[in-house]
Amino acid sequence: MQTLEKTHPAFLKLQTLLAEINDIQSAASLLHWDQATYMPPKGAAARGRQLATLRQIAHEKFTNGAIAQLLDDLRSYEADLPYDSDEASLIRVTRRQCDRASKIPAEFTARFSQLRSDAYQAWATARPANNFAAVQPYLERMVDLSRELANFFPGYNHIADPLIEFSDYGMTAQSIRRVFAELREQLVPVVQAITAQPPVDDSCLRQFFPEAQQLAFSYKVLAQMGYDLERGRQDKTLHPFMTNFSIDDVRITTRVYENDLGQGLFSTIHEMGHAFYEMGVDPAFEGNLLAAGVSAGVHESQSRLWENLVGRSRPFWSYFYPHLQAMFPTQFKDVSLETFYRAINKVARSLIRTDADEVTYNLHVMIRFDLELDLLDGTLAVRDLPEAWNERYRSDLGVVPESDREGVLQDVHWFTGRIGGMFQGYTLGNLMSAQFFEAALADIPTIPTQISQGNFQPLHNWLKDKIYRHGCKYTADETVQRVTGKPLSTAAFMRYIHQKYGALYSL
Amino acid sequence: MQTLEKTHPAFLKLQTLLAEINDIQSAASLLHWDQATYMPPKGAAARGRQLATLRQIAHEKFTNGAIAQLLDDLRSYEADLPYDSDEASLIRVTRRQCDRASKIPAEFTARFSQLRSDAYQAWATARPANNFAAVQPYLERMVDLSRELANFFPGYNHIADPLIEFSDYGMTAQSIRRVFAELREQLVPVVQAITAQPPVDDSCLRQFFPEAQQLAFSYKVLAQMGYDLERGRQDKTLHPFMTNFSIDDVRITTRVYENDLGQGLFSTIHEMGHAFYEMGVDPAFEGNLLAAGVSAGVHESQSRLWENLVGRSRPFWSYFYPHLQAMFPTQFKDVSLETFYRAINKVARSLIRTDADEVTYNLHVMIRFDLELDLLDGTLAVRDLPEAWNERYRSDLGVVPESDREGVLQDVHWFTGRIGGMFQGYTLGNLMSAQFFEAALADIPTIPTQISQGNFQPLHNWLKDKIYRHGCKYTADETVQRVTGKPLSTAAFMRYIHQKYGALYSL
Repeated sequence: MQTLEKTHPAFLKLQTLLAEINDIQSAASLLHWDQATYMPPKGAAARGRQLATLRQIAHEKFTNGAIAQLLDDLRSYEADLPYDSDEASLIRVTRRQCDRASKIPAEFTARFSQLRSDAYQAWATARPANNFAAVQPYLERMVDLSRELANFFPGYNHIADPLIEFSDYGMTAQSIRRVFAELREQLVPVVQAITAQPPVDDSCLRQFFPEAQQLAFSYKVLAQMGYDLERGRQDKTLHPFMTNFSIDDVRITTRVYENDLGQGLFSTIHEMGHAFYEMGVDPAFEGNLLAAGVSAGVHESQSRLWENLVGRSRPFWSYFYPHLQAMFPTQFKDVSLETFYRAINKVARSLIRTDADEVTYNLHVMIRFDLELDLLDGTLAVRDLPEAWNERYRSDLGVVPESDREGVLQDVHWFTGRIGGMFQGYTLGNLMSAQFFEAALADIPTIPTQISQGNFQPLHNWLKDKIYRHGCKYTADETVQRVTGKPLSTAAFMRYIHQKYGALYSL
Repeated sequence: MQTLEKTHPAFLKLQTLLAEINDIQSAASLLHWDQATYMPPKGAAARGRQLATLRQIAHEKFTNGAIAQLLDDLRSYEADLPYDSDEASLIRVTRRQCDRASKIPAEFTARFSQLRSDAYQAWATARPANNFAAVQPYLERMVDLSRELANFFPGYNHIADPLIEFSDYGMTAQSIRRVFAELREQLVPVVQAITAQPPVDDSCLRQFFPEAQQLAFSYKVLAQMGYDLERGRQDKTLHPFMTNFSIDDVRITTRVYENDLGQGLFSTIHEMGHAFYEMGVDPAFEGNLLAAGVSAGVHESQSRLWENLVGRSRPFWSYFYPHLQAMFPTQFKDVSLETFYRAINKVARSLIRTDADEVTYNLHVMIRFDLELDLLDGTLAVRDLPEAWNERYRSDLGVVPESDREGVLQDVHWFTGRIGGMFQGYTLGNLMSAQFFEAALADIPTIPTQISQGNFQPLHNWLKDKIYRHGCKYTADETVQRVTGKPLSTAAFMRYIHQKYGALYSL
């Protein structure tokens, strides 16, 4: 913060306390990153305890009254600050988070953290073994603790509301259901129209692609797109994620399937989009609560924008396809750019969310969102979850998983987070990504041309200026309004879908 | 601890508090491990702050009076416990460490931790660049802070004494100088006698050995010797080390030089020896202060025992040499076991401590020990250190580094620890390793035969029973006396040197 020297002593003290908590939380994030990347398996028990201890200490320091007192002391100072000043924003965001955190006992934080570690470890073994029974008790406990967490915030309409507010402040089960219903109504006819047509041949993506070359190509893409390997790195995990330990240490992970090129490639670009966001925050925010994305939805808008609106676009591949052909000469010798482009944009009723096309992806999200709500409000028991999952896939997507590995065990979220509020961000992010991209194109119409020349900087700079550098100063609603001049709607996304897929399929 | 249920409530509370501190320290150790292995370079600034914060919190929790109060409450309970009971030992060790830590302000801990991170990062860049000037200010500050640290413990004879006590409790500058002088007197004639003879041809070790195969062979050795990869892992670092985050997560690092087989191989076995110690601690000690090695000396006795008394022995290579030949068929096709054995035990006046033979190794340590004392008591200024280093190498070993990279910049210790008490443990460890190994052979005379069959379990079990499982219940003096029936002396080590090198050279 530029004006740090001149500010109220309580504000300086606030920054010091927040920096200490941030250090503890960063250490906890590293404990988790290590658990997912390099930790030897028998280190898991101690790791769970370590994570619980650190999260409990961070929680105690945040809620022990010292920060609340400083926030009180700052009320009159805050009143004179402009709303969008760094100082006012930090005070506002800290107050919101401190009020919320203070309702959660530190003891619960430790218990919940322990369960998250244990459940993650159980999932990491159960998923490859296709063993839902092994994780069922962990999920049952996760539902219990998620309900307990929600009940620290009485007065909700739906028990998921407090949990949704953790990740997408300003949204509720009801408001999301409304958006999702509107989106579903417009999407289903498109899915039907497309899947009634002969399937696209995407066999070019299902050849053998050795891991080493896939990783080498992904590093080429990362470098060209501007991911700074002096400030980040990429490792392999069961489920890809982004995590950060400071603005200058923002790491991504990926997974590579040697018979499916898309998995690794697009997950790399997706996580890089998340990383761009965290790396692009104003360095003056280092160590305080503003150095974070706004919400799950806005964060996903960036991962999905880079993955899809950029990474699955014609301009992107008109630049990168020759490089891909050079990396895999035998595999792509006789595959035209057009064939490849159609393959990576093939729309199909499929089983795996992270591998789904842009059109059906949101149907995967809606299934999870509805199941979360059912688990939380008691409509659905965990033991019936695999069947409910499969039934929803049958009814919504017309496909049924042959195993829980391709079904309810595919996503890590419920095993390392909580049940409730974990998935809606993806679809909110899809909607925002199209709305943001439209605004970017209105400002810089040459973005597609630049991308086709391998130049990602103008778009990156635009996003950094409009979104990344502000960290979480603004809410999601404020961000969408500020950046696009309009509230969030399904319009831009549906325009994008109709335009892109109308050209690919007869619609 | 088996009798946990029946013990004094203050003892149970003590265990809980220690476990929390242990979790924080383990997280700090992971922050350091990550800094040395995978952290992107620009993550360093935040990492330094995070380490300082965690170490300060751990220190505050250890010294805020709560533990001291519990130790007071436990005085009468302790008086009725046998000295070597787990409970009495934990109370005793905690009291010793708490008394010591309480003399150090938490503020100093944070400042010192920050310097350690900054100095490490500076060294990591300066060493390959051969740039002593770049680290000089960090070293000067390290001398200042090391002196400040020592001065929290007034009443010493030499300012290094309190620092030596951190790592080798029970020793002083004077007592170490006495042992070192006695050892030097016996070693120098041996070095002279050997180096007057024609040099051994060790060119077989200086061929090209691709990193991947070196690492593959080191994993083969680790597995055969009993390092459990479910409870540990090996990564690459600038300077090899062992670190642990629990009894079940004990990691080692190595470095590989493609034109020098010995570096990677023997550093792997060395660090594995440290890891055996930490992995062998009684699982009941998990999370408390007993789950650690006794002292730097006893710890090094294990790394050096496995590296040298086992890893550079004839029986070891009569088992492993065929495997090594299979891994490097062209390199070792025409090299006999005898030639290889003589090469790995070549005695020479050399520059690099970690690469030195068993006979001259202790001379390298004595140089560092003396320089540490001179830096601390003001006899030597940091700016004059490279020259003093080179001069001592000339006078003691008859060789002079051509660059600081091969000289004063070679070791990480002063850049990540402190100045004072960092090196004597290696030579104390060498002495103990021979004394322990003699005792093991007296109990199990078939150990060499077992090793020649690739069976390391009997020796490992003996060491675990005699040393590892006890953690730090006993002091170094007590440990040596208990295990060997005698106090520490140079006798066993000199017998070992005369026997082994008398057979290799005419002495």
